[in-house]
Amino acid sequence: MRSRVLVPAALAAALGLFMTPDTLQADEGMWLFSNPPRAQLKKYGFDATDKWLEHVRLSSVRFNSGGSGSFVSPDGLVMTNHHVASDDLAKVSTDEKNYLRDGFHAKTRDQEIKCKGLELNVLTAIKDVTAEVEAAVPAGAAPAEAFKVRQAKIGELEKAAADPAKNVRADVVTLYAGGQYHLYTFKKYTDIRIVFAPEKQAAFFGGDPDNFEYPRYDLDVTFFRVYENDKPIKCEHYLKWSAAGSKEDELVFVSGHPGRTNRANTVDELKYLRDTGYPYLLNRLNRLEVLLNAWGGRSERNAQRAEDELFSIQNSRKARIGGLAGLMDPKLMGRKEADEKRLKEFIAKSSDPALSAAGRAFDTIAKAEKVRTDLIKEMTVLENAGGFSCSSFSLARTLLRFSEELPKPSGERLREFGDARIPGLKFQLASDEPIYEDLETLKLADGLQFLAVTLGPDSDLVKKVLNGKSPRERAFELVSGTKVRDPKFREQLVKGIEDAAKNKVPFDLAQFKDPMIEVAKLVDPASRALRKRFENEVDEPKRQAYAALAKAKFAMDGDAVYPDATFTLRLSYGTVKGYTEDGKKVPAFTTMDGLYKRSVEQGNKGPFELPKRWETKKGALDLSTPYNFVCTADIIGGNSGSPVINKNAEVVGLIFDGNIQSLVLDFIFDQDTARAVSVDSRAIIEALRKVYDANDVADELTGKK
Amino acid sequence: MRSRVLVPAALAAALGLFMTPDTLQADEGMWLFSNPPRAQLKKYGFDATDKWLEHVRLSSVRFNSGGSGSFVSPDGLVMTNHHVASDDLAKVSTDEKNYLRDGFHAKTRDQEIKCKGLELNVLTAIKDVTAEVEAAVPAGAAPAEAFKVRQAKIGELEKAAADPAKNVRADVVTLYAGGQYHLYTFKKYTDIRIVFAPEKQAAFFGGDPDNFEYPRYDLDVTFFRVYENDKPIKCEHYLKWSAAGSKEDELVFVSGHPGRTNRANTVDELKYLRDTGYPYLLNRLNRLEVLLNAWGGRSERNAQRAEDELFSIQNSRKARIGGLAGLMDPKLMGRKEADEKRLKEFIAKSSDPALSAAGRAFDTIAKAEKVRTDLIKEMTVLENAGGFSCSSFSLARTLLRFSEELPKPSGERLREFGDARIPGLKFQLASDEPIYEDLETLKLADGLQFLAVTLGPDSDLVKKVLNGKSPRERAFELVSGTKVRDPKFREQLVKGIEDAAKNKVPFDLAQFKDPMIEVAKLVDPASRALRKRFENEVDEPKRQAYAALAKAKFAMDGDAVYPDATFTLRLSYGTVKGYTEDGKKVPAFTTMDGLYKRSVEQGNKGPFELPKRWETKKGALDLSTPYNFVCTADIIGGNSGSPVINKNAEVVGLIFDGNIQSLVLDFIFDQDTARAVSVDSRAIIEALRKVYDANDVADELTGKK
Repeated sequence: MRSRVLVPAALAAALGLFMTPDTLQADEGMWLFSNPPRAQLKKYGFDATDKWLEHVRLSSVRFNSGGSGSFVSPDGLVMTNHHVASDDLAKVSTDEKNYLRDGFHAKTRDQEIKCKGLELNVLTAIKDVTAEVEAAVPAGAAPAEAFKVRQAKIGELEKAAADPAKNVRADVVTLYAGGQYHLYTFKKYTDIRIVFAPEKQAAFFGGDPDNFEYPRYDLDVTFFRVYENDKPIKCEHYLKWSAAGSKEDELVFVSGHPGRTNRANTVDELKYLRDTGYPYLLNRLNRLEVLLNAWGGRSERNAQRAEDELFSIQNSRKARIGGLAGLMDPKLMGRKEADEKRLKEFIAKSSDPALSAAGRAFDTIAKAEKVRTDLIKEMTVLENAGGFSCSSFSLARTLLRFSEELPKPSGERLREFGDARIPGLKFQLASDEPIYEDLETLKLADGLQFLAVTLGPDSDLVKKVLNGKSPRERAFELVSGTKVRDPKFREQLVKGIEDAAKNKVPFDLAQFKDPMIEVAKLVDPASRALRKRFENEVDEPKRQAYAALAKAKFAMDGDAVYPDATFTLRLSYGTVKGYTEDGKKVPAFTTMDGLYKRSVEQGNKGPFELPKRWETKKGALDLSTPYNFVCTADIIGGNSGSPVINKNAEVVGLIFDGNIQSLVLDFIFDQDTARAVSVDSRAIIEALRKVYDANDVADELTGKK
Repeated sequence: MRSRVLVPAALAAALGLFMTPDTLQADEGMWLFSNPPRAQLKKYGFDATDKWLEHVRLSSVRFNSGGSGSFVSPDGLVMTNHHVASDDLAKVSTDEKNYLRDGFHAKTRDQEIKCKGLELNVLTAIKDVTAEVEAAVPAGAAPAEAFKVRQAKIGELEKAAADPAKNVRADVVTLYAGGQYHLYTFKKYTDIRIVFAPEKQAAFFGGDPDNFEYPRYDLDVTFFRVYENDKPIKCEHYLKWSAAGSKEDELVFVSGHPGRTNRANTVDELKYLRDTGYPYLLNRLNRLEVLLNAWGGRSERNAQRAEDELFSIQNSRKARIGGLAGLMDPKLMGRKEADEKRLKEFIAKSSDPALSAAGRAFDTIAKAEKVRTDLIKEMTVLENAGGFSCSSFSLARTLLRFSEELPKPSGERLREFGDARIPGLKFQLASDEPIYEDLETLKLADGLQFLAVTLGPDSDLVKKVLNGKSPRERAFELVSGTKVRDPKFREQLVKGIEDAAKNKVPFDLAQFKDPMIEVAKLVDPASRALRKRFENEVDEPKRQAYAALAKAKFAMDGDAVYPDATFTLRLSYGTVKGYTEDGKKVPAFTTMDGLYKRSVEQGNKGPFELPKRWETKKGALDLSTPYNFVCTADIIGGNSGSPVINKNAEVVGLIFDGNIQSLVLDFIFDQDTARAVSVDSRAIIEALRKVYDANDVADELTGKK
C-alpha cells in the first residue's frame, strides 16, 4: 500500500486529479524514523538505510521551547533558527546588551552565554509498545475505564524507561490517534550556551511584509553549544556541512519536529473552516489589525505599545489567508473528497464490528460542525472574550472564576483551574508586565461594539453590560475604574480566595466593588452555559468520531501512511524546486545580491533596513552566493530550525519558513506551489566569514578546525 | 415652536435626556438665511438683523466643485480650504511645478493663475415659490402626473429668473422634502485665479492618522481671486478679518453649504445602519485596508499604486467608525426615539386625511429595511461588484450593459445609460488613467474569495465564475486575459455598439471572446434581478414613505425647524468649546508650538514631516499663536471652507474638518462631544507673514492695503 494521496486511478481521473503529473508522485509525508518512506524514495533511486536513518535521527535535536535543530560539529554545536532562539537571546540580554536586536558572537568558548531554562532532547530509541498498552485494557472495557487503565500503563512504561540521573527522558507517543503507541527515549540536555546569532534585522529581513512570502533574503540562523559537566559534549553523530549546497531538482530531506497537523479533518470540517470559521476569524483579525494600526499611527508611543500584538495579528492573518486560499482551491478539496470516499467505501465494505462507529462518524462530525456554525459568534464574543478584548477583563474573569472554582474538587473544576494548573495560573496572575490603560480602553471599546453588533445592541445582556453608556464611554469607565491591573491587588485576591477555600468558607469578591469583575460576573452565566454546550455538542462528539475514523483508517492503511504530526521527530523529503505564481516563474534560489537590491528598492527603511555591518561588508561578499531556497518537502510549524540535508546527510540548508501557499499544509498536502523556505548552507558560511568575522564558527562547521 | 430637539419635558425626563444641561439648549441646526434661528439666538443676546444676514449671505461663496468659501477683501479675494482647492491646484500643476504639493504664492496680480473649469456662486436672492409650484399641480393628480407638472413649473420659474448673459443662475430648491420650494438666484463667477496655497504637508499635516481627530495643527487654507472682464471684482460685501480671533465660549457662526444630511431617518433605518449596514461595510473596508496595506508593504511601487485607493478606504473607514459609535450611543438614539414618538402621536391625533399615508410610512420603512438586510450581502458582491472588485470588471460590465441598453428607448434603460448620461459615460470609458495589472489581480482574487464566501463556494454561480480554479488562479487568468484595460479596445467597442444601435442591428459582443466580459455576462442576469428587487422593494417604497413623513413633519412644525441639508447656503451657530474624551479635557485651541511638538514626537516622518520652510522659519514665529480650534456649530461635508465669524461678521476661523465624534451628525445632532474643527484667523496671518513672506495677502485680509 501507498500513501493516502494515491486513489484508485479511475476515480482520480474522473475527479481531474491527473492535471499535473506531480500529483501522482507527490513528495507528501511527515514520516516516522521507524517507518520511513522507503517505497516512495525508490523513484529517486535512494535507499534510506538503517544506518543513514540512525545517523540523521541522532544528529537531530528538539527544542522544548518549540522548534527543531541539529548537531553540526563534533563539539556539540547546534544549529537552529534565530526566531527559535529569540526568547533565549532576549532572556540573556541586558539594558546595555541587546543580543536579540544586535546579534552575538562568542570568539572563545568562555564567552559563550548559558541560556535560561532551555532544554534540548535527542531521540535515542524508539520502541513499539502498542501490544503492551492494548493488552492492559480488558476486553469490553467502557471508554472511561479503558482510558484510565491505558494511561496507567503508559505511565508505568515511561517510568521504567526513564533515568533522571542520567538525563534520560521517556515519553509514550500516541500515533494514528491511538492506532499505535511508541515509547520514545530521549537524551536530555539542559546546559545550552549561545555561540553565534546575527542581528534580528538580518535574520528577519523583510519583517511582516515578507513573512510567508518568497523570494526571501534572511539569515535566520543561530548556533548554540551543548555542554555537560561544564564541558562541550562530544558528538558521535552530527551533520557534516555541504560546501557545494544543493541544486535545482536535487533530492533533499528535512529532519525535524512538525507540531500538529489536521489532515484527518473530514470534508465537512474543512468546509466549515472554509465557509465559516476562517472567514469569520479573518474579519476579526482585519478589524483588530486596522484598529491597532490606526491607533499606532497616532503616535510613536502608541506604535510601540501596540507593536507585539499587531505583529502577532498580522502573522495570524497571513496564515489564515494562505490557509483559506488553499481550502478554496477545488483541486485540493477534490483530493480530500476522493480520500474520504475511499475511506467511506472501506468502512461500508468492512465486516469488522469495531468499525461500525466509524460509519456514523462522518454524520456526527457534520452535525457538530453545524452546531459550531450556530455557536461560533456567541462563543467568540463571550467565552473567548472577543466582546471584552482587553487584559483587564481577562484578569477580572480569571479572578472571578478562580474564586468560584477553587472550592470545588479539582476534577469538577473548569479544566484550566485543575490542581495541576494552579501554579501556572498564579504565576501568570503575579506577572508585572505593563498593561497600558489607553490601549486597554481602545480595545475594550472596540470589543464592546463588537459585542453589541454580535448580540444586538437592544439585547438584554448588551444593555446590562453597557449600562446606558456608549461602548467608548463604558470602556473608559471600566478600564479606569478597575484595580485588576495592579499585581498587588491580584495577589491580595488570590491569597483571600486560597485562604477561604482552605477554611471552607465563601469568599466575598463583591466587597471590592470592582467594576470589571462585576461585568465579568454579569456575563459569566451565559458564557459558561455556552461553553458547556460547545463541549457537549461539538468537542466531545468530534473527539469520539475522529478516534473512530482514525481506527478505520488504520484498519485500511495500517502504517503505510504517516500519522498526523505530534511534535516528535519526522522525516520529510522533496526536491529543490521553484514554482509558478500568477503566471510568473519564481526561481528556487535567491542570491545575496538580491538582499541588497530588495533593500534599495524599499528605500532601506523599516524591516528592509540593512544592519550596518551588512552595508560596510558588502564589498567583501561574493554577491552571487545563493541565499535562500525553496523545496517541496512537507513541513509545518515546529519544523523551524530543521536541517535540510542531501543524500549524504550533509547540511545544504536550514528551514525557517513556508511560502503563503504552504499554509494549507495543515489540512492538505500540495506540491504545485506550497514550498518550504530555507537558508542556503553556502550563505551561512559566506556571512559568517565575511560579514561577522566568525571564521571560528565557519571553520568548525566545515571541519577546518 | 422650537427645534426638534425639544421634546415634552416629562417624556425627556423619563428617557434621561436631561443628563447634560446642554441638551436643553443645543446649538443644533443648519438654518435657512430666509428663516434664521432668531429665537434660539436670544439666549446669547444676539439679534440676527436682516442687514447682518444679507451681508453674511452676500459674502458667502459656493464652490461648485463641492465646498464653501467667502469673500475676504474688497478686491474679490476668496478664502477656502486647501483640500477644497486641491483639484484646482493639481489641474494647473506641471511636471516642473507641483503647486498641490509645494504650494503657490502670486506676489503680484499678474502672477495669479487662472483655474480650469471652476465655478463660484453667490446667493443673491431667495424667493418662496411654494404656492406657485403647488398651484400648478391639479388637485387629485396621480403622483407621476403631479411630478411631471411640478417639474415643468419649476423649469419655467428657473428659466424666467435666470439671465445667462449677466451670469445669473436660478435654481428652485426643494426643502422639507417638498414642504417648501424656494427660488434661489445666484451670481455666477467663472474666472477664478489662484493667489496663495501652502504646501500640502502644512495643509494636511498629520495625514490619515490625524484626519477626523483633535487636537490638530493644519493650515488648510487657500486663497483665490474672482475676476470679471479680466479684472478683480469689487466686492460690496466681504467679511472683515478679526485680529483678535475668538475666545473659549464665544458665540460664533458658520455660513456655508452643508451637502446632505439624513436627520429624517426613522429609528428603524438608523437601527438597520447600526446593526447591519455599517458593521457589514466596516468589515469590507477593514478587509480592503488590510489587503492594500499588506500589498503596499511589499514594495515602494506597490505602495504608490495602492496609495490613493488606500487613503480613500481609510477615510471611509474612519467616517463609518465615527458614525457607528454615535449610533451606538443610547443617549443619541433615545433622542431620536423621542422625536419619532412625538411625530407618531401628532399623526395619530391629526384629522387631516392627507397625513394618512404618513401613518403607514414607519411600517413601510421598517419592512424595506428588512428586505435591505436580506439583500445587502448579495447586492454588495453582485450589483455593487464587491465580488469582482477591480477596474477591469467594472469596465467589462459597463461595456456589456452599454451594448444591451443602448438599443432601448432612453427612458427604459438602466438610469446610468440614459441619453443625458451617455457623454459622461463615454468620457469615462475613454480615460487613459493607468490601471495596474498586478493590483487588479490582487483585488480580483480577494473579490472572488469574498464572492465565494458570500454565496457559498459550492453554489452554481460561484462554480461557474471560478471555472474549476482557485480565486487567485482565476483572477490571474481573467485579468491577464482581458483587453478592456486598453482604451483603444474600448473605443472600438463603443463605436461598434453605437453604430449598431443607430442601424438598429444587434451588436455581437461575444465575437471578442473577452474572458472578463464573459464573466460579466455570466453574473449579469442575477445581478440585474437583484437590483430590480432592491429598487422595487427598498428604494421606491422608502422614497414614498419618507415623502409622506416629510409632509407630516412639515404639518407639525412648519418651518420652525430647519430642513435637511441640500448643498445650499445655511447658517449654523455655536460656541468655541473644548470637550471631554476618555475623562480627559480636550482644550478648544491648539497653538503653533503644538505643531512642532507633534512633529518631533512623531519623528518628523511621513504625514508628520514639516515642510522645509516651517523648519527654517520656526524662530520667527510667535509659537503661542492659536492654530486650530473647535466649536459646537452644526456642520457636515460641504461645509469645508466655510468661514467661522463672530457677532460682527468678522472672520475668526475657517472650517476644515470635524472630529470623529462629529461623524454622527449625518443622522443626529450632538454637542456633548461633536465638534467642527477650524483654522484660527490669527494663525493664518502669522503663517502668511512669517512663514510664507506673503505680507501682501495678510495686508489685504487685514485691510492694510
